[in-house]
Amino acid sequence: MKSFLKEIKFPSTKHTYIEDITDKVNETIEKSGVENGFVIVNSKHTTMGILVNEIAEPNLLNDIISHALKHIPEDKRSTRVHKEYKHPTTDYMHRCQDNPFCDEVDEDYNAASHIRSLTFSHASATMPIRNGRVELGKYQQIAIFEHDGRDGKGKNPVRQRTYQIWIYETEEAQIIK
Amino acid sequence: MKSFLKEIKFPSTKHTYIEDITDKVNETIEKSGVENGFVIVNSKHTTMGILVNEIAEPNLLNDIISHALKHIPEDKRSTRVHKEYKHPTTDYMHRCQDNPFCDEVDEDYNAASHIRSLTFSHASATMPIRNGRVELGKYQQIAIFEHDGRDGKGKNPVRQRTYQIWIYETEEAQIIK
Amino acid sequence: MKSFLKEIKFPSTKHTYIEDITDKVNETIEKSGVENGFVIVNSKHTTMGILVNEIAEPNLLNDIISHALKHIPEDKRSTRVHKEYKHPTTDYMHRCQDNPFCDEVDEDYNAASHIRSLTFSHASATMPIRNGRVELGKYQQIAIFEHDGRDGKGKNPVRQRTYQIWIYETEEAQIIK
Repeated sequence: MKSFLKEIKFPSTKHTYIEDITDKVNETIEKSGVENGFVIVNSKHTTMGILVNEIAEPNLLNDIISHALKHIPEDKRSTRVHKEYKHPTTDYMHRCQDNPFCDEVDEDYNAASHIRSLTFSHASATMPIRNGRVELGKYQQIAIFEHDGRDGKGKNPVRQRTYQIWIYETEEAQIIK
Repeated sequence: MKSFLKEIKFPSTKHTYIEDITDKVNETIEKSGVENGFVIVNSKHTTMGILVNEIAEPNLLNDIISHALKHIPEDKRSTRVHKEYKHPTTDYMHRCQDNPFCDEVDEDYNAASHIRSLTFSHASATMPIRNGRVELGKYQQIAIFEHDGRDGKGKNPVRQRTYQIWIYETEEAQIIK
Repeated sequence: MKSFLKEIKFPSTKHTYIEDITDKVNETIEKSGVENGFVIVNSKHTTMGILVNEIAEPNLLNDIISHALKHIPEDKRSTRVHKEYKHPTTDYMHRCQDNPFCDEVDEDYNAASHIRSLTFSHASATMPIRNGRVELGKYQQIAIFEHDGRDGKGKNPVRQRTYQIWIYETEEAQIIK
């Protein structure tokens, strides 16, 4: 069984945002030449996940993000402070390791970003491929949901992110009636 | 690698409900003749998802639904009003487009249905197939979780829904000890 | 297409905990001899799920568990009582059936465990395999998330749990540029 991999790297542009990657998935399927099969889209991060929902409507994205930030608030020691978590993250170096411009301990506390990531997004999404395109409903898109990005400002201005598109080829599906 | 597709269309019967589709999945596997492999069950909608949990116990379903509706309440302009979302959905035509009997703008606001759908269900679920049946634990069933259905009343009485069952055939699994 | 199955059984050790199973997944891949493909890790239970996130940092695990228990509290008739659910589970025999040492009706109420399981974990996770290992980011691990375990005490001291690791072999992925 043939398979194909496209790895996409990009810098995050905001702390929390949702970005449609459906075109990237379909472009990758097209380049692979696969007509039928399935695709696994996976995040390489623990504070950025994959989401399949309606991504084209910007006010809905704001509703989703507002809900996520309100229901799972920040640690009070975070630079985006709201509340105290009882057992905060102690592994301070994590963000710095993701950040090529950082040479000091990161004092940010991102437990909330992890919890939002596992509540509202996924490490991977698996969807069928039909007729050379990912099989989605009229309002469905595939997106990355960034829960702990950077906006180019502050001590750690840049965070590099990676997701992968894995394509697996099958024969054309036989229709069951 | 062989694959098979069954597409199932049905009208929703209530605003929010969970319905066991395990028998449909097993019937489709049986019709395909596949003994070993895996199945992707996927929703074509952004306010109806797939869930794998205990579906046979009706009081538990009520608990799950009560929790979902309480923790992610409706927009105050919704006909099922509870609270205000800061950035409501502006794309008013969506529900009408799903509704063959609708010829006017839909004034319902369904941001909460989207958020419930992505919090408590999934665009797809992937499960192994063994001995001609989906591999589930004693209390596990596969279900659709409708978050924005219609009950035959009001301006938009009917909403058509679709989910798909994709079956992929493999050799019998070798047991690793 | 070749596939492989490893089934792992173990007794739960606490009511709610997260345990890294990445090494088990990679050991199974190694034993299978598979270099490329994908893996489905699935729970056989409705109150224990699969999670992919950062599992190596113990304080983060405490944050995740604290959040889950606080936001989805116990039934007030539970032995770990907090709040009342309107429609509790009536199927009292479930826990006993999972417990070889139990010969009486179980009076525990575990609706909250089901809701936590479906909110914060999954019946299965599907991830790619590359170079004989599950494809994970630097901070990603695969874990079981137990939401309704036993700690060796009380009327029902032991709960046996099972998860499965299904490995599917493909050709080496062709890189798409």
